[in-house]
Amino acid sequence: MGTDSCSIDTAIRADDPELVRRSARPEGTIVDVNGIKIGGKEIVIMAGPCAVESEEQLTETARSVRAGGASLLRGGAFKPRTSPYSFQGLGKEGLEMLERARKLTGMPVVSEVMDTRQVETVARYADMLQIGSRNMQNFPLLKEAGQTSKPILLKRGMMATIEEYLNAAEYLLSQGNTQVVLCERGIRTFESATRYTLDLNAIPVLKQRTHLPVIVDPSHGTGVRSLVPTMSKASLAAGADGLLIEVHFRPEEALCDGSQSLYPDEFGMMMEDLRKIAEAVGRSIHKL
Amino acid sequence: MGTDSCSIDTAIRADDPELVRRSARPEGTIVDVNGIKIGGKEIVIMAGPCAVESEEQLTETARSVRAGGASLLRGGAFKPRTSPYSFQGLGKEGLEMLERARKLTGMPVVSEVMDTRQVETVARYADMLQIGSRNMQNFPLLKEAGQTSKPILLKRGMMATIEEYLNAAEYLLSQGNTQVVLCERGIRTFESATRYTLDLNAIPVLKQRTHLPVIVDPSHGTGVRSLVPTMSKASLAAGADGLLIEVHFRPEEALCDGSQSLYPDEFGMMMEDLRKIAEAVGRSIHKL
Amino acid sequence: MGTDSCSIDTAIRADDPELVRRSARPEGTIVDVNGIKIGGKEIVIMAGPCAVESEEQLTETARSVRAGGASLLRGGAFKPRTSPYSFQGLGKEGLEMLERARKLTGMPVVSEVMDTRQVETVARYADMLQIGSRNMQNFPLLKEAGQTSKPILLKRGMMATIEEYLNAAEYLLSQGNTQVVLCERGIRTFESATRYTLDLNAIPVLKQRTHLPVIVDPSHGTGVRSLVPTMSKASLAAGADGLLIEVHFRPEEALCDGSQSLYPDEFGMMMEDLRKIAEAVGRSIHKL
Amino acid sequence: MGTDSCSIDTAIRADDPELVRRSARPEGTIVDVNGIKIGGKEIVIMAGPCAVESEEQLTETARSVRAGGASLLRGGAFKPRTSPYSFQGLGKEGLEMLERARKLTGMPVVSEVMDTRQVETVARYADMLQIGSRNMQNFPLLKEAGQTSKPILLKRGMMATIEEYLNAAEYLLSQGNTQVVLCERGIRTFESATRYTLDLNAIPVLKQRTHLPVIVDPSHGTGVRSLVPTMSKASLAAGADGLLIEVHFRPEEALCDGSQSLYPDEFGMMMEDLRKIAEAVGRSIHKL
Repeated sequence: MGTDSCSIDTAIRADDPELVRRSARPEGTIVDVNGIKIGGKEIVIMAGPCAVESEEQLTETARSVRAGGASLLRGGAFKPRTSPYSFQGLGKEGLEMLERARKLTGMPVVSEVMDTRQVETVARYADMLQIGSRNMQNFPLLKEAGQTSKPILLKRGMMATIEEYLNAAEYLLSQGNTQVVLCERGIRTFESATRYTLDLNAIPVLKQRTHLPVIVDPSHGTGVRSLVPTMSKASLAAGADGLLIEVHFRPEEALCDGSQSLYPDEFGMMMEDLRKIAEAVGRSIHKL
Repeated sequence: MGTDSCSIDTAIRADDPELVRRSARPEGTIVDVNGIKIGGKEIVIMAGPCAVESEEQLTETARSVRAGGASLLRGGAFKPRTSPYSFQGLGKEGLEMLERARKLTGMPVVSEVMDTRQVETVARYADMLQIGSRNMQNFPLLKEAGQTSKPILLKRGMMATIEEYLNAAEYLLSQGNTQVVLCERGIRTFESATRYTLDLNAIPVLKQRTHLPVIVDPSHGTGVRSLVPTMSKASLAAGADGLLIEVHFRPEEALCDGSQSLYPDEFGMMMEDLRKIAEAVGRSIHKL
Repeated sequence: MGTDSCSIDTAIRADDPELVRRSARPEGTIVDVNGIKIGGKEIVIMAGPCAVESEEQLTETARSVRAGGASLLRGGAFKPRTSPYSFQGLGKEGLEMLERARKLTGMPVVSEVMDTRQVETVARYADMLQIGSRNMQNFPLLKEAGQTSKPILLKRGMMATIEEYLNAAEYLLSQGNTQVVLCERGIRTFESATRYTLDLNAIPVLKQRTHLPVIVDPSHGTGVRSLVPTMSKASLAAGADGLLIEVHFRPEEALCDGSQSLYPDEFGMMMEDLRKIAEAVGRSIHKL
Repeated sequence: MGTDSCSIDTAIRADDPELVRRSARPEGTIVDVNGIKIGGKEIVIMAGPCAVESEEQLTETARSVRAGGASLLRGGAFKPRTSPYSFQGLGKEGLEMLERARKLTGMPVVSEVMDTRQVETVARYADMLQIGSRNMQNFPLLKEAGQTSKPILLKRGMMATIEEYLNAAEYLLSQGNTQVVLCERGIRTFESATRYTLDLNAIPVLKQRTHLPVIVDPSHGTGVRSLVPTMSKASLAAGADGLLIEVHFRPEEALCDGSQSLYPDEFGMMMEDLRKIAEAVGRSIHKL
């Protein structure tokens, strides 16, 4: 007769990488994206289309998420796609559209970079560089991005352990860039009711083990539009410092991920609910 | 160039089993455990030790969770243990202790049944029968429990898809017992920072697909004490109808799952936070 | 610059349960099923239908697998089924058919037991008791089966770690029954090209860590008929002591698992190939 | 009462990508690496150290695997490592050592490329470009490598479905490069007895669905030296066209993956056994 040996005494590991580990900056890091601070008391909402598809699509969507209460605009110009025959993004033309949308709305822009050779270009247009799930262990890309002065949104790999995730962030910090935001976006499990299994446990685990801000992407994490508002609320209750939400002005026409994109009015209604949860956990939603 | 074919249009499946599917009772089922209603506007907290270990342990823990705001008392008399050499529970003696604790505190009691031959005995003492994760597909046990008139707490298997889970519940309903509460308790994934990956996506998915109430067990679901309060808040924000929380008056002496059991004062503090989240989602915590 | 810390030095664990661990019987256990020895130099093939469906189906299938070279007849009388509305097996009538098929063919019979209350009955008819994947951690059933004198085929849970699997076997041995055969039958992963992921790594890992014989069920493990012969060959090359193969005289009419059942002539052809692999690894196929 | 609806009728999908799908070249593709043909009747063994560490290490290891029967030399000059503080490879100096080892032994060389900017350099030195597991969905890298005339070894992502894997290969073929070899190297599951779960089911599934040759890396796939010979045998029995084996002249001093690297004499002994399996499946091992 003995006590159960399977249990984990604590989620904190002494051997977490030295620059990202919590004890390296116990007060927490605040990341500044063109004046918008992520990691403080205010929760930051990033929203926009999966991919930049056209001037009209981006502008209309940007205006609506701005009106709904988003602070940053997301939109991909370079898209990692499973099939070589799927829409690969508008490239530099898409970045230029993002620049115009920023001017129009005042929202800083986050956009993905996939190739070491694109880093300089994307960094010229975007206020924050996104490194996607499939590139979380693209080590040359991490090194290159870590050498820029732009804040970085590093998404968790869909198969990455927390330990590997922290090490990927360490690659960025080891190059001198400390402006790093982490983003849970769903892991791969046997469950097929959702596209991925959004792992909200990762929020408190990461908050215990690292000083970096943590946000959540419930759009990719579930792949199902009707689950996004609920999982967004749960994310804030679990301590997320922000959300990354896909919104499209006409989801049924989207070239990418339409079925997980919110309609603009759904986004607005969700924001109402999120303000209540933010208050219940002693925080508030950042207002541009 | 085409739209992304990976996405899931909706989480609702036309072929869900006929008695448990949402459309069989669109207004939702309310389960009545000796007067305490699960599935309505009020959120119900069940708490207590993993295993009944002694009169003192159970009584002290029961009193403290009652004082903290729990409405039901949990405690195992028959324990499924990975090793044959681990503590297997006090059996009938444990059930008698639970009966005395109920009298003392007024809290109805939920306790696990593992064997078709135990169903009658456990049903005599407990107000609600728990069928554990490892028995979610113990079909003879489901049939036997489904033939009692006791409400049943059916935990999700750690490897069970939503589809299999709904079918397991259908076994119960097909025997005539409609008083069934579902409970997410963590699934097995590659991630080892937590004991299991508590899958909060299951809450809205289940609420869409079935009319049965859904609660969450963050104690088993994470295996880490310090994560329980945070994941409890997230569970309520995600729409859970209740929580199942392990509390022990002296966790460091527990014969089972001590490292995931809350101290009584932690439980009390957590309840304060939960009331705020409940209010933020337009609900309240049931008060005995 | 350091060496990689992720690697595992050895698959052998000092804390494996005491009765099943390799060092408890370094020479290996040989399990005797009515004169047929499993775990020695000869590889034993068990074959037959998933479920006993009728006298004709069982007799025809039994004759054909006997002719093809199988030594044991498999067939379920009590069937664990995901849905309560699926065929649940013929029960005792099925056991009686198995008894007649044994007399007709001379093949000992292995059949599943799902409920503690069935153990005595199944043990009266079958030469070997099968405990299925969903019951690997049905601890009361393990205890009950461990108290019989019948050899037991314990299938690995679809979500069970090797450690949990060894502990489940320890439950059997701790009751005094040492005649236990282990069976890998596929684990649950994210991959959906196969029904489960047949984990052949489990064969050498189990052979290193326990003295019990290890067989493989490629029929359930893949769920795809066309993969069964190939994975059977791979299983023998990996050191399996036997195979459990689903064969049906008319798979397209099967009430259960037809799409993974071999046609009798496929089974016969596969056996030819298996003899060559057996020889290549210094073994032979048992001949009745 | 109905037949089981869970089963998969066939592993072949009509919507597999058009260039890699089996029907695009029913007779199968043979990849030519400097005269060594992969995908024909002869099985090709690639062996060598995980990383090139020094002239002596590479030369000694190369000689021993050549003597043991390997036809290609593997060795990484650019190493993807989880931690930024782990040995990252010797870079161009490593490629030069590989070139000298090729001259010395006559073995063509396969080496990994991680960055679009390295493709030209690695292609100048190596006879075959390896794209590693973490880069299976590094789409810019796939496009860049697909534009060279070098044969490519594309490893399966540790979280990649077969469908995603075929699409990654399609990226290469869509650029005009048809000389592509696939390599199963273990997927991530809940099981921790092995570093990954080597998924041998992938061999017959891939052989059914694509015309590209398929090899296996049991060293990374298991992470455990003592499992490598057994899983190598199983791989050949399952139909693999080749193996990728880590061998180190002094594994205990390796800077990377020492615990999964074979000693030279173990490699030689394994080759003896592999010849017997190859013969049992009607094939032979290529001899340089």
